[in-house]
Amino acid sequence: MKTIGIVDTTFARFNMGRAAVDEIQQNVSAKIKRITVPGVKDLPVASKKLIEEEGCDIVIALGMPGAKEQDKICAHEASTGIIQAQLMTNTHIIEVFVHEDEGKDEKELAFLMEMRSREHALNVVNMLFHPEKLVKQAGTGQRQGFEDVGTLRH
Amino acid sequence: MKTIGIVDTTFARFNMGRAAVDEIQQNVSAKIKRITVPGVKDLPVASKKLIEEEGCDIVIALGMPGAKEQDKICAHEASTGIIQAQLMTNTHIIEVFVHEDEGKDEKELAFLMEMRSREHALNVVNMLFHPEKLVKQAGTGQRQGFEDVGTLRH
Amino acid sequence: MKTIGIVDTTFARFNMGRAAVDEIQQNVSAKIKRITVPGVKDLPVASKKLIEEEGCDIVIALGMPGAKEQDKICAHEASTGIIQAQLMTNTHIIEVFVHEDEGKDEKELAFLMEMRSREHALNVVNMLFHPEKLVKQAGTGQRQGFEDVGTLRH
Amino acid sequence: MKTIGIVDTTFARFNMGRAAVDEIQQNVSAKIKRITVPGVKDLPVASKKLIEEEGCDIVIALGMPGAKEQDKICAHEASTGIIQAQLMTNTHIIEVFVHEDEGKDEKELAFLMEMRSREHALNVVNMLFHPEKLVKQAGTGQRQGFEDVGTLRH
Amino acid sequence: MKTIGIVDTTFARFNMGRAAVDEIQQNVSAKIKRITVPGVKDLPVASKKLIEEEGCDIVIALGMPGAKEQDKICAHEASTGIIQAQLMTNTHIIEVFVHEDEGKDEKELAFLMEMRSREHALNVVNMLFHPEKLVKQAGTGQRQGFEDVGTLRH
Repeated sequence: MKTIGIVDTTFARFNMGRAAVDEIQQNVSAKIKRITVPGVKDLPVASKKLIEEEGCDIVIALGMPGAKEQDKICAHEASTGIIQAQLMTNTHIIEVFVHEDEGKDEKELAFLMEMRSREHALNVVNMLFHPEKLVKQAGTGQRQGFEDVGTLRH
Repeated sequence: MKTIGIVDTTFARFNMGRAAVDEIQQNVSAKIKRITVPGVKDLPVASKKLIEEEGCDIVIALGMPGAKEQDKICAHEASTGIIQAQLMTNTHIIEVFVHEDEGKDEKELAFLMEMRSREHALNVVNMLFHPEKLVKQAGTGQRQGFEDVGTLRH
Repeated sequence: MKTIGIVDTTFARFNMGRAAVDEIQQNVSAKIKRITVPGVKDLPVASKKLIEEEGCDIVIALGMPGAKEQDKICAHEASTGIIQAQLMTNTHIIEVFVHEDEGKDEKELAFLMEMRSREHALNVVNMLFHPEKLVKQAGTGQRQGFEDVGTLRH
Repeated sequence: MKTIGIVDTTFARFNMGRAAVDEIQQNVSAKIKRITVPGVKDLPVASKKLIEEEGCDIVIALGMPGAKEQDKICAHEASTGIIQAQLMTNTHIIEVFVHEDEGKDEKELAFLMEMRSREHALNVVNMLFHPEKLVKQAGTGQRQGFEDVGTLRH
Repeated sequence: MKTIGIVDTTFARFNMGRAAVDEIQQNVSAKIKRITVPGVKDLPVASKKLIEEEGCDIVIALGMPGAKEQDKICAHEASTGIIQAQLMTNTHIIEVFVHEDEGKDEKELAFLMEMRSREHALNVVNMLFHPEKLVKQAGTGQRQGFEDVGTLRH
């Protein structure tokens, strides 16, 4: 059985990890390893440990970077580290970040955080079990959390 | 026979991978491995896996970064990772990015995405089969998708 | 017995390392290795040496980046290195940075530096001894030094 | 006999590689390996392959980043990769970049590209054959392509 | 006997390496290996080679980034590389950068370059021979070249 790692943060203001776990369990039978770290900069090594020490076949790293300039820099550092961790393990880590200023109010932000977590959980299911489905979606303007924008009219 | 890897995204709004595959097949006999990932930040490890797990001799990584500031940062992170992946494998990964704001409308953007994908596919063919052709083009102001600008008048 | 590494700087204007050591000793029985380096850019390798040469199970890296633009860049470089050090060792290094311009005066800045050092020391204790406590705090908007912001109302 | 690697791009608008080769051949007897890649982001792995697969003792990586903001980011990514490639091989790769907006017209730009390529080629010759000459130039404000600015008056 | 590596640049406008060597020799008995490279981007691999090929126990990397925006980016790339080099060798490389625009005139800039080189040379001596002295200075607002700012009043 495949193992999916889930790592989220205490800094985020919505339980993104729970949404991802729920979506996976509704769609596929897989072993799930879940941990939580303080902030997004702790996600890279946590993800790498899930892969190398817990045997995860893929990891979902979820976080909510804050709205301040300094928070944007932290998010950039975290993303860079998540890419490095993937290259060091030859394993995908799907990053699910929702910036605190992406929603116009708390309700919309929470909705966005839940939807993006769920839709990327489905991406992970497809990457693990049905990679050919992604090839069929190539160039179709998929978006997670927002409505898909579709293929260019030409 | 040489193997060329092609990886593109579901986020893009034009099927760049298909254009690259078509251009290669019109010009050379090579084995092609194609996969699709959600977004540009998934390209680095996908490319590295094509090289190390699928035996690709070179990879074309195609994506369409969005027009927002945050999208530009994602593109930068992806590019950094693609360079790292090359250094870890001693193998070229030709990055083909078309930013969503490079075209003045959907039609021009689609045209640019197709042309840049095809012209970089030809670069890959030359790098693999005729590297001496590139030396002859050194300093000649080649552009992919846009018209070549040529050598400086001096 | 677990070993916790503490590294701080002579550049900082508050003894962050002492606050972290004090908080740990009040809460848990662990071996502590403490060193001090000149500035934040010296923290990555110092942390890695604490892990690989001194056997630390986790490290707290504390610093106070200055308020100037150049100092912000140094902080970014340090953070990037701290993430790399974690990936190279599969060990968490909790970064505790307080920017010199985060406090409105010296008193508030000192208070913030002490509180953030102490609260992150507690995070480290939990990560090492009670990781399940962090999962319970997932998505609850924890902040270190400032008041927690809580879960989104939705 | 020492081997010097030369890698330049088809994107550049002046044949920088040829200028570097010519300058080396006028000054020293060394084996030269020359290749050309599409753009500056292809330079890091090309340089690393020259070192590891072609036995080069040092490499000159020449490019002309474009004048647009996006081109500046590409140059930054390329430079970061070139530094990484050096660290992975313990071998110097001398980066020779002339930004397209450094010259006031095509003639000046071409002149600058030629001069900087030639002067850095001389640096490479010195690093390889006469490293003590560089120590004698320490702190003397050397510039490549522009006039030297000299030691500070104090 | 301990070995200290010193690497500086021909781009700088003050002989920083000589100042560092002089300060070390006045304070401690150690073997010194000195080299000079063209610019700050050549410092990372030069430092790593001093450690791995010349047996240095610690390195001082000195440079004067220029005042232009592009020079700031070069300094950032160099700093990132210097941190990487440290992580790859588990050895401290103390970066001593004085930006060309830090002094109000040539005289002040030269003074700053000399003082920062000397004060960081003392840091290196302490790190190598008296690390406990640095712990005593933790949080005391040490500055190199400028006057120390001291501990926060609280």
